Amino acid sequence: MENRLAELKAALAEISDLHSALALLGWDQETCMPAGGAPARAEQISTLSKIAHEKFTTDEMGLLLDGLMAQLHTLNPDSDEAAMVRVAHRDYQKAKKLPGSLVADFTRTASLAVEAWREARATNNFAMFQPHLEKIVALTIRKAEAWGYEDHIYDALLDEYEPEMKSSQVATVFKQVRNAIVPLVDAIVSRGKPVDDAFLREYYNPQKQWDFGVKVITDFGFDFKHGRQDKSTHPFTTSFTSNDVRLTTRIMENYLPSALTGTMHEAGHGMYEQGFAPSLMRTQVDDATSLGFHESQSRMWE
Amino acid sequence: MENRLAELKAALAEISDLHSALALLGWDQETCMPAGGAPARAEQISTLSKIAHEKFTTDEMGLLLDGLMAQLHTLNPDSDEAAMVRVAHRDYQKAKKLPGSLVADFTRTASLAVEAWREARATNNFAMFQPHLEKIVALTIRKAEAWGYEDHIYDALLDEYEPEMKSSQVATVFKQVRNAIVPLVDAIVSRGKPVDDAFLREYYNPQKQWDFGVKVITDFGFDFKHGRQDKSTHPFTTSFTSNDVRLTTRIMENYLPSALTGTMHEAGHGMYEQGFAPSLMRTQVDDATSLGFHESQSRMWE
Repeated sequence: MENRLAELKAALAEISDLHSALALLGWDQETCMPAGGAPARAEQISTLSKIAHEKFTTDEMGLLLDGLMAQLHTLNPDSDEAAMVRVAHRDYQKAKKLPGSLVADFTRTASLAVEAWREARATNNFAMFQPHLEKIVALTIRKAEAWGYEDHIYDALLDEYEPEMKSSQVATVFKQVRNAIVPLVDAIVSRGKPVDDAFLREYYNPQKQWDFGVKVITDFGFDFKHGRQDKSTHPFTTSFTSNDVRLTTRIMENYLPSALTGTMHEAGHGMYEQGFAPSLMRTQVDDATSLGFHESQSRMWE
Repeated sequence: MENRLAELKAALAEISDLHSALALLGWDQETCMPAGGAPARAEQISTLSKIAHEKFTTDEMGLLLDGLMAQLHTLNPDSDEAAMVRVAHRDYQKAKKLPGSLVADFTRTASLAVEAWREARATNNFAMFQPHLEKIVALTIRKAEAWGYEDHIYDALLDEYEPEMKSSQVATVFKQVRNAIVPLVDAIVSRGKPVDDAFLREYYNPQKQWDFGVKVITDFGFDFKHGRQDKSTHPFTTSFTSNDVRLTTRIMENYLPSALTGTMHEAGHGMYEQGFAPSLMRTQVDDATSLGFHESQSRMWE
């Protein structure tokens, strides 16, 4: 058992390192990379994704995980080791269903689409982005078919964000939310005169916006020794490990909430990522339980 | 022949992508990475270096290159394909002599040393850097012994910078240079009063220093659509592909030459890297012939 666990940890550590490098390739593309670097970057992301997938889906990994799952009852179910085995086994079953070529195609297509999206957005030209979006949808459908599903094709995709969640359950939740929100919005609209939010749309010095946001999230507890903030076309958070978490924000000179709420929101994501136990680093368990959990953290702080 | 060349190109493209990702991991460490990210970054660099080495030194690669070398006479010796085969075969022979564990240890050690060096430099504390330097020297000696040499151990290391050059040849060149330089320096010193360079040591606005350097190298021809400049502790140039070349500079408020000559020097390196033929991208031939060539470009522009 101990030997097998050590073997699994060593293998997952290598795969985690590849995923960290992939996260950096993506972060750099959205924050620093000159536009001319885009085609080669897509190849780099595609190659590393394929290698990470290959390393994770070997027959040896399958045997190792089967052996560990057979002994899982000997571990404390709340232990990190038991979680590591369960998560890796579940991820393996899913990864094994995807051909490496599909992983390579999807990641290359998505990377090229980022550049097209940025340019299309700047020139308000959807036609420029449309062929990329069509390719992404087609490849995503192929992924869903490869994973398989019972009721709805989106169940296969939803599982990536909310493990075990079904589209029908989300529809039930959304229906309840809609039933509460629609009357609320109607009531607000029926009041007539909207609240005056002109003060949000005055000129605010960009550097002061940046500095204020940094002060706010430092006070929240975002740790700049283990993270940083940059600017990007759309704000996001990415994490190489819990010791290196990258936020981005977007400053609009004449709209105060853009940078401030973006920074607070992303810091919520970032503090969640910074909070994973150091002992879990490079195990693949140092990852969000689900997108819902992640978003609960970002929205709470925002 | 055609099939074998295609197979080699596909394999080298993957390995090039790994090296590009490694270059980004190194660039980010010196320009952006928060200090807390250092230990995990060293593991990422070590893992990717080991994987790139493993992928390059397979027995299949050896057979493929042997087959291509046997047919090399059928190619135009000046063709890109012939160069690709020769370079890959030479690199393979050398890489095969290094154990993967040594590659992993060396790259991890070097990455950790960067962080120690930065902190030691800031606090002028050589004792902090010394143990890292000792490890690097010990591992470098192991590399030299693994590669082998005839006359001088440094011949094995020099070959990485100037292929086929021997330490004894460098000593001859240096002797000639010394014979000319020592009397020149003596003559300058004997003139007595040194030239007044106080104007170099006045206050120069950092942003204006940056902007002026950017203007100068843009006029040189450095292409910012396929590159960028950042700040780092010590200036350097790195290249992910010829379409994404990164320079750094270091601004000193009270010493004008630091940023300006650094920027011009690195732009010389950068333009050399940007000048590789696009057709050579991801072949491993899109690399400097030697460090001497590289430095001739940087010093000429500086």
